[in-house]
Amino acid sequence: MAQNDDNLLKKITAHAKEYGFIFPSSEIYDGLAAAYDYGQNGVELKNNIKQYWWKSMVQMHENIVGIDASIFMHPTTWKASGHVDAFNDPLIDNKDSKKRYRADVLIEEHIAKYEAKIEKEVTKAEKRFGEAFDKVQFLATNPNVLRNQAKIDEIENRLGTSLEKGDLADIKALIEELGIACPISGSKNWTDVRQFNLMFSTELGSVADDSNKIYLRPETAQGIFVNYLNVQKTGRMKIPFGIAQIGKAFRNEIIARQFIFRMREFEQMEMQFFVKPGEEMEWYESWKEKRINWHKALGLGEDNYRFHDHINLAHYANAAADIEFRFPMGFKELEGIHSRTDFDLKAHEEHSGKKLQFFDTVENKSYVPYVIETSIGLDRMFLAVLSAAYTEETLEDGSERTVLKIPAALAPYQVAVLPLLKKEDSGLPQKAREIMSDLKFDFNCQYDEKDAIGKRYRRQDAIGTPFCVTVDHQTLEDNTVTIRDRDDLSQIRVSVEELKAKLKEVTSLEKLLRKA
Amino acid sequence: MAQNDDNLLKKITAHAKEYGFIFPSSEIYDGLAAAYDYGQNGVELKNNIKQYWWKSMVQMHENIVGIDASIFMHPTTWKASGHVDAFNDPLIDNKDSKKRYRADVLIEEHIAKYEAKIEKEVTKAEKRFGEAFDKVQFLATNPNVLRNQAKIDEIENRLGTSLEKGDLADIKALIEELGIACPISGSKNWTDVRQFNLMFSTELGSVADDSNKIYLRPETAQGIFVNYLNVQKTGRMKIPFGIAQIGKAFRNEIIARQFIFRMREFEQMEMQFFVKPGEEMEWYESWKEKRINWHKALGLGEDNYRFHDHINLAHYANAAADIEFRFPMGFKELEGIHSRTDFDLKAHEEHSGKKLQFFDTVENKSYVPYVIETSIGLDRMFLAVLSAAYTEETLEDGSERTVLKIPAALAPYQVAVLPLLKKEDSGLPQKAREIMSDLKFDFNCQYDEKDAIGKRYRRQDAIGTPFCVTVDHQTLEDNTVTIRDRDDLSQIRVSVEELKAKLKEVTSLEKLLRKA
Repeated sequence: MAQNDDNLLKKITAHAKEYGFIFPSSEIYDGLAAAYDYGQNGVELKNNIKQYWWKSMVQMHENIVGIDASIFMHPTTWKASGHVDAFNDPLIDNKDSKKRYRADVLIEEHIAKYEAKIEKEVTKAEKRFGEAFDKVQFLATNPNVLRNQAKIDEIENRLGTSLEKGDLADIKALIEELGIACPISGSKNWTDVRQFNLMFSTELGSVADDSNKIYLRPETAQGIFVNYLNVQKTGRMKIPFGIAQIGKAFRNEIIARQFIFRMREFEQMEMQFFVKPGEEMEWYESWKEKRINWHKALGLGEDNYRFHDHINLAHYANAAADIEFRFPMGFKELEGIHSRTDFDLKAHEEHSGKKLQFFDTVENKSYVPYVIETSIGLDRMFLAVLSAAYTEETLEDGSERTVLKIPAALAPYQVAVLPLLKKEDSGLPQKAREIMSDLKFDFNCQYDEKDAIGKRYRRQDAIGTPFCVTVDHQTLEDNTVTIRDRDDLSQIRVSVEELKAKLKEVTSLEKLLRKA
Repeated sequence: MAQNDDNLLKKITAHAKEYGFIFPSSEIYDGLAAAYDYGQNGVELKNNIKQYWWKSMVQMHENIVGIDASIFMHPTTWKASGHVDAFNDPLIDNKDSKKRYRADVLIEEHIAKYEAKIEKEVTKAEKRFGEAFDKVQFLATNPNVLRNQAKIDEIENRLGTSLEKGDLADIKALIEELGIACPISGSKNWTDVRQFNLMFSTELGSVADDSNKIYLRPETAQGIFVNYLNVQKTGRMKIPFGIAQIGKAFRNEIIARQFIFRMREFEQMEMQFFVKPGEEMEWYESWKEKRINWHKALGLGEDNYRFHDHINLAHYANAAADIEFRFPMGFKELEGIHSRTDFDLKAHEEHSGKKLQFFDTVENKSYVPYVIETSIGLDRMFLAVLSAAYTEETLEDGSERTVLKIPAALAPYQVAVLPLLKKEDSGLPQKAREIMSDLKFDFNCQYDEKDAIGKRYRRQDAIGTPFCVTVDHQTLEDNTVTIRDRDDLSQIRVSVEELKAKLKEVTSLEKLLRKA
């Protein structure tokens, strides 16, 4: 289970690099901020997560189909969705360091200083009073605490009001009044605060004027909405039905951090489910349940999930909840389930002049469907699996190991085939390769003959291979091998004839799909 | 087999839209030039092609692993690769229409007029001489032909020389001397010709100055090269070994056309194979053979492939060939196999200051490996499968059908389950669903109960489903169903118990992988 531990994220990041899961992007050029590349083991784990999602959502549901829309879309799409006008962060530049900041984050970080002061008072008092210390009472009465808390409340109220009203001048005034300095230059020489759109833009080269600005999609959802009618008609879909998509999206976040949790280039797995207006709450509840079951089927620990129901809803939603996962940095959003009403389809109707309706043969009328969205960050899902799987253990013999207890069906390799000896004249490498050449059609297999067997087991532990098949002298006598279990270290001996069936039983995705 | 037919591409494009394979992107906004979305059937076919490639390249090869690098890379990557300086097209704008053109293409289109004149002379002469017409002799002697041919040769020579020397002023002079007018405005009011980089650029928002210009990668290969050392070390790879990747790339083509053959956003499947210097020609030949076998294993017709060896080599290559496929518009590049020498790794060494070498324990020395690249356009591969599969047939009973003879393992759905009757009280839908709920873990299945059975077969033909399982009255009696073969229309009756094994036998990817 994921430890709630600052250090853990660092350990996982280091392990992910050392074992070929995730490398900093363009590392030979000292990296590109907040971009990462999936390495040879990472790409397999990521593909397996995609497959689990896709099969579970599309292949298992008669009324859900997939699409794969392009990243480039007609720019009016983003007018209709509201992203051109309202997908902004308030930014401010320091004129001396030339560094750019989110104005609200500068202020939040200033607030954190008052919070630290309160924390310091608490620690001091705890020491002084020992067992007798009553924290609630202390916070409610200590004058230093109260003064700092009042300051916090005052700043937060003013910031909240200004953000809500879009009063950028007042946000700058607040920064100046608080005397906030640039963390790099120490200077208070600020530009005005201005809105900065989070979409990346680029230009299509087909025309000479500037009407050719397009965006990298900031979400995959709109690719589904603009294709709603094409899919419904050509797929002869009847409501309720869903359209699923896996693909990249891009957001020009000023602060992108926490490893792969928040990146500027990321991948989403989204499904938009079209329902009859008035029935959306029923479907919303049903998808919440289905989606959390999908997560729990992985066996990463039921305690690691919780729902967070949104109180402040986005302009397009009439209900929304997150599935939060216990990441190393605490509970954070992993997936969102949103009841998006008919906001998007109606907006596209208005901007395109096309009808995006469904003719309901039972009701004998047309309507714009309502939409339930399930949207999961693939990179976050990857981090969830990796952090829940990461385990440091002391074994019975006192030795230590780091093992990734990745669900077998998702592991980069399901099977490692290991001849006990490397020497050709032992006959073991040949036998091992013969076994592997049969297994490799059904499993992603790794062959390893280098170093002592114990060391090889550790290497497989570190990349999460659930089963090691060892070929030893007895194999040559009675055609049996051992299967070593990554998690409980048990070894069983099976005949080569039954090996494939045995391994399928314990690694198959089907078991997961039936549970989810 | 693909017909060599102008009209065929239009038919395939229309079929692809009507049956949910490919939609114009953002169609409700009248599309975005040269961008397409994969629909509900297209995405499945595309995913199956990816899987065939990935399993064949990665899972079947002990010494090839995958990665998935991000689209955003450090901008110095593209300095090192040469794309910043040399990935250009010569462009010219018409000042009246504001339309932008590739200057060389304007001239090529002008040349086509002389070619049309020659063609007209030939047609006229053919009519006049009938059987006796000798085309070769006619072309070599007719004065009108010779005059036009001389003009063509003159223009082509001058254009070639100017392009080679980068003499943009002379290209403009040529356009003016030939009196080329804008096809839109008819005006000859041209800007100067200038180089236009084909990379899409955008800006990272983390800093205020303009040092934050980045590019959308124009090829996936560089994502492999910058990760070469990370993968080699963490994966403990020994030369020869390969790194494979599937991912999007972007090129700001001025003229993007021929359906999904040339798009501005496209997907590549690339593998870079690192070898010992001096052994590259051996590996180059070996990969040429392996790759064409991979294509031919699909059974789309051996005549549809040919090699085209490059005579003019790119600056980084010492040998290169294309595998060309007979598309509806003729033989065109489908995959490239390039011997890229150590150009890329050396360039990255120079620009990054990092050593990108391999220590050869046999030779006891370090060297920068040579590279053989196999690079295939996924969208082109999709078009190849679609166009080879597209068949219009007249059946024995005189009726006509359009059928996609897609290789069974790649088809969007492998199986359709069809109850003969829709009525619940027949018991057939229930039985069909029971069968489907067992099959759906192993196959992508479609359930269809609407319309007469013949009409349903046609629908499955049109989306390329290789096998239809029909549940009829006899099924309820003896637990057997019929399997109908898409291609030869034969039907066999099998028991439900043996159905899954039977279908696996005829749809499995393993068969393809063993052949490839």
